[in-house]
Amino acid sequence: MPRSSCAVLAAALLLTLGIFSPALAAEKVRSAIDAGNRAFLEAYAKGDSAKVASLYATDAMVMPPGAPQAKGRAGIQKFWQGAMDAGIGNVTLKTIEVGSSGALAYEQGEFGLDVKGKDGKTAHVAGKYIVVWKRTAKGQWQLYRDIWNETPQ
Amino acid sequence: MPRSSCAVLAAALLLTLGIFSPALAAEKVRSAIDAGNRAFLEAYAKGDSAKVASLYATDAMVMPPGAPQAKGRAGIQKFWQGAMDAGIGNVTLKTIEVGSSGALAYEQGEFGLDVKGKDGKTAHVAGKYIVVWKRTAKGQWQLYRDIWNETPQ
Repeated sequence: MPRSSCAVLAAALLLTLGIFSPALAAEKVRSAIDAGNRAFLEAYAKGDSAKVASLYATDAMVMPPGAPQAKGRAGIQKFWQGAMDAGIGNVTLKTIEVGSSGALAYEQGEFGLDVKGKDGKTAHVAGKYIVVWKRTAKGQWQLYRDIWNETPQ
Repeated sequence: MPRSSCAVLAAALLLTLGIFSPALAAEKVRSAIDAGNRAFLEAYAKGDSAKVASLYATDAMVMPPGAPQAKGRAGIQKFWQGAMDAGIGNVTLKTIEVGSSGALAYEQGEFGLDVKGKDGKTAHVAGKYIVVWKRTAKGQWQLYRDIWNETPQ
């Protein structure tokens, strides 16, 4: 094998590993996470808890404040359906930072939501979150670990 | 360059990237995180908030429930000193899962702590956390994002 073929092999290997252009790779991950969050908010606003759950990995966990973690898509769907039923709406997500390496990424963000009480009054809650995202073998980014807490306003 | 040299180059490249033995790499990351957590608990128990803060990356953030995030080592030291001063002790950490890719890792875990009130009574608090860890250029793993919330017992 001539020297040039060897260089081509090395370059192909680096490209395959997705580290040849870290900036491009980071941009792709960010786009995928942005799209995932848009899909989340759209499905949540429609009250489609099954669609929300489908954005998570099959072995994902939601780790909510004041409650045990919800595991797997069935558990996660039940959790978000419960949130919808509890009158939680107007959910907003703002991504502050994304970092990734290979098939693993973290997202740091801020959220807001309104809780509509039985008395008709609405309370606003805001806070911060970390989501660990994983890329599937098919190249799809899915929420894997999702944890948040409240920040007093 | 002969074909065998090319294979050696490719193997060396893979080894350098640390993906030749994912199991070995995962074990090393887990060991580093375990050591980091032991150092955290030891420093916390001694009331050494500067040592606790030194385990975080210089651009790290602590994202506590019910409070704004604390940024950088000075902010993080102040946060943990505040926790110590507030009578929070007997801190325990239990790592449930670690995943990593290259210089990025997440840790999912459960914590416990006791809050000693001014009336002398002690309340136990338990919860769950995610820590995003980063490996420095020198190979040291440091806490980068640290978020948790309470789980009612």
